[in-house]
Amino acid sequence: MSHYIGVDIGGTNIVCGLLDDQLNLLRKIKKPTGAANGADYVLNLIASMIDELLGQQGLSRSELGAVGMGNPGFVDPIRGISLSSANLKWENVPVSDKLGVILGGIPVFIDNDVRMYTYGEAARGAGRGFDHVMGITLGTGIAAAMVNKGELYYGSGFLAGELGHVPFEGESALCGCGMRGCLETIASATGIARIARERLDQGEPSLLNDWFPGERRSEITAADISRAYDEGDALAQDVLRFVGQSLAKGLAWAITLWSPDVIVIGGGAANAGERLLAPMREALMPLILPMYRSRFVIRLAEMNDDAGVVGSGAFAKARASA
Amino acid sequence: MSHYIGVDIGGTNIVCGLLDDQLNLLRKIKKPTGAANGADYVLNLIASMIDELLGQQGLSRSELGAVGMGNPGFVDPIRGISLSSANLKWENVPVSDKLGVILGGIPVFIDNDVRMYTYGEAARGAGRGFDHVMGITLGTGIAAAMVNKGELYYGSGFLAGELGHVPFEGESALCGCGMRGCLETIASATGIARIARERLDQGEPSLLNDWFPGERRSEITAADISRAYDEGDALAQDVLRFVGQSLAKGLAWAITLWSPDVIVIGGGAANAGERLLAPMREALMPLILPMYRSRFVIRLAEMNDDAGVVGSGAFAKARASA
Repeated sequence: MSHYIGVDIGGTNIVCGLLDDQLNLLRKIKKPTGAANGADYVLNLIASMIDELLGQQGLSRSELGAVGMGNPGFVDPIRGISLSSANLKWENVPVSDKLGVILGGIPVFIDNDVRMYTYGEAARGAGRGFDHVMGITLGTGIAAAMVNKGELYYGSGFLAGELGHVPFEGESALCGCGMRGCLETIASATGIARIARERLDQGEPSLLNDWFPGERRSEITAADISRAYDEGDALAQDVLRFVGQSLAKGLAWAITLWSPDVIVIGGGAANAGERLLAPMREALMPLILPMYRSRFVIRLAEMNDDAGVVGSGAFAKARASA
Repeated sequence: MSHYIGVDIGGTNIVCGLLDDQLNLLRKIKKPTGAANGADYVLNLIASMIDELLGQQGLSRSELGAVGMGNPGFVDPIRGISLSSANLKWENVPVSDKLGVILGGIPVFIDNDVRMYTYGEAARGAGRGFDHVMGITLGTGIAAAMVNKGELYYGSGFLAGELGHVPFEGESALCGCGMRGCLETIASATGIARIARERLDQGEPSLLNDWFPGERRSEITAADISRAYDEGDALAQDVLRFVGQSLAKGLAWAITLWSPDVIVIGGGAANAGERLLAPMREALMPLILPMYRSRFVIRLAEMNDDAGVVGSGAFAKARASA
């Protein structure tokens, strides 16, 4: 019976997991990515992490069916190439070929991280049992992916789902993509903290002024806004309401164009939970056709930390058996 | 060698076409739908039109591989049921079963009209040769469909693509769907005429005042706005610019979520051509990521009148051989 490896690689850390044939996560290890050392260093590090996992489990490479990896940035999952990753500073890295050679011929399949997260939640998490699963990650940025009956939706150039990058009228914050006022500048961990800081700069009263006096204001994170919200802070509540309403505007288009059965929301900023989701739901319903309203459910991700690893492993198993 | 029938049914007319095995349209006939007589009447009428086409070509029913039909409204293409059609006043009509029985067992496949139009343009029209084809119809309403490598995108309940029904901020016209300010109230033949009439009602100067004095103002159609545009009429030019810009806002989301290689725009209001598409393109490009901008092309439908018939026939052939 084959085992599978799932790799979730980010700009800061790499998480490698070992899965059995039923896609149960047996064990995982985490190491700093060390992206500054270049792609070859990182891929050799991943190979050593895989060997470490196999050793811990008393397995050899020959008992491995395939390796899957979720990459930040743009990926060609057919050719196994990381086209462009700002976080890793990778351009056109043939990940599947290179890692496959290092591993002595074990098949390696890659895709981008939001698709692997969604694939994992669809297979084993909050999307289990649904035919049409939309995944949203609210982290440093925001992105979306869609799994229909076990198949990822790609579109031309594998570029579908960049939900975070449509500019909103009346918004002007510079986005990492170069445009201004994108949803990502609002509905993301970064966006939540930025909006709160800007309103504090304008002199609005808030507990956050006491918690983060003077220069320390720049340290405020999305988690702090949730903490202030729970203390009844009006600014924090207003910020999360605005972010929820903005997210609703983007989701209205995604629901209308994709028609999901379930929307699985994950990523760090999803820890705000109902503080964010309650105003989002309220704003969302009037923006979509009645026939959609009772059709989908909104769920928080079940495997926040493991979805990328399990999704990558599940994706590798599916691709290897295709 | 099998032949195929494609049927395009609307509230006013039915067009039936006979296609050879290569999906060449050999001949077609058109008759008033007579929807008021009920579904059984309409389905028997379609059967008689099919027999008429076969007779004209010297063929018998046994030489027919399958029948395809594009229905207005919501359709379950798997079970072959017209779930709900406001134009035909149909609710849960088992079209495939009923028409199949009337035709003595010939397989009948149905889908909604915008999907059949897009399928036809993808197979034989302006989308030919592209992997990811987005079809938009600008008629009485506006709707969208997506064909990826020959496969229609459906989503949950076959409801994906209702591009016309997301409300726009600052817009308040009542939409046929019951919501207010939907894209369909602006970017459609009906929307274009409504906006022009409302601005005339507010006393704006325009050639249209001379062409349609007094009560006749209600007769203004989208085609008249194009005619006034060509005479240099400022109101007409402004209306089409506004409609193009609004359409761009909806398309920005569709491009970002679906990632098409080609956008095929058809339907009656697409006759406005560059009068509408030039301002649309100009507004669209700043609303989408640079990586999309050079990826897709925008084309007018090539088979405006025949796309539904050819698409339905092609869909029937594909489903019958699946």
